[in-house]
Amino acid sequence: MKPPSALAELIDALRVLPGVGPKSAQRMAFHLLQHERDGAGRLARSLDAAAARIRRCQMCNTFTEDELCELCSAGRDGRRDGTTLCVVETPADLAMMEQTHAYKGLYFVLMGRISPLDGVGPAEVGFERLMARVCAGGIAEVVLATNFTHEGEATAHFIAEAVKARAPGVRVTRLARGVPVGGELEYVDPGTIAHALQDRRESS
Amino acid sequence: MKPPSALAELIDALRVLPGVGPKSAQRMAFHLLQHERDGAGRLARSLDAAAARIRRCQMCNTFTEDELCELCSAGRDGRRDGTTLCVVETPADLAMMEQTHAYKGLYFVLMGRISPLDGVGPAEVGFERLMARVCAGGIAEVVLATNFTHEGEATAHFIAEAVKARAPGVRVTRLARGVPVGGELEYVDPGTIAHALQDRRESS
Repeated sequence: MKPPSALAELIDALRVLPGVGPKSAQRMAFHLLQHERDGAGRLARSLDAAAARIRRCQMCNTFTEDELCELCSAGRDGRRDGTTLCVVETPADLAMMEQTHAYKGLYFVLMGRISPLDGVGPAEVGFERLMARVCAGGIAEVVLATNFTHEGEATAHFIAEAVKARAPGVRVTRLARGVPVGGELEYVDPGTIAHALQDRRESS
Repeated sequence: MKPPSALAELIDALRVLPGVGPKSAQRMAFHLLQHERDGAGRLARSLDAAAARIRRCQMCNTFTEDELCELCSAGRDGRRDGTTLCVVETPADLAMMEQTHAYKGLYFVLMGRISPLDGVGPAEVGFERLMARVCAGGIAEVVLATNFTHEGEATAHFIAEAVKARAPGVRVTRLARGVPVGGELEYVDPGTIAHALQDRRESS
């Protein structure tokens, strides 16, 4: 049986979502049509509104509805520490950093990580915009908070080398590696324990 | 950081999809905004079109854009066998039955299964519409193809008893249980093997 065309079209359109294959898309479409017609309408309106209104922050590259995002505006008004710049891969990572309430500086969002195999080079992650900002002065420290994956580590290394070469006065740091809170040594991988041992600190 | 409101609204709206929690919704929203703005627009239009055009088939209860679905129309024109009625839980199950190319009759789609714990009784699965159709005459066999879960089995039992009581001339059958194609006995559960043994058939 060929499904009705509006249904086939909806199933196909749902596959634009990450991690949604043909089976999930079909399940989602049936669920929406059977139980969530109002929710489907609301989703359609939200998609249009988001596509129309959301753009990139001129300073940090994250998603915003204004010229500058909330955090960069706060930095301009002196309500955040403009001398520290934290480099993250995605807005989700930025949100996670903010949830810690342990960081008061500003951000630069790469919107990706350098990954030559996927065709993502420095240009695709706004590298020159980042360097221009770092070299413009006023920034004392760059905190590299990319993921601890191969690509994230390579991206951090690439940025660290560039900052050291082109802005020698700027301190470059990386988030510490170590045993996670609540972690049991028995179940943590040896590489992590090796890093935690190397970076051990005086007991307070 | 409070995300911009159109973004927060989109993340919240995406949670209407089955199996999508706050983290997945955030990931989907960021993905759409960064890589799939066109796809997001297409999804919005598909959602609206589907909600506006798709309704229930007057005969079998499945999704359709017309009065009757394609299969029921074919049944009315004599291109499908109108004397056999297969009862399935969802349009996805109907599509799976059709993919076998082994069934030429018509369907009734319950759009669910009887599950008193979830507040789903016979009325919620269109039981009386099904019985009216079976009792109206012209149907020689009802094939119960609900899932082999507790609820699916209970639903099949409930319908079987009702058909036997109210339409005694109609044959009621259930899909066979047994070892799946490609199944290795060592890895099939004992309950399935017990059924396969009980329903064993002459080697052809």
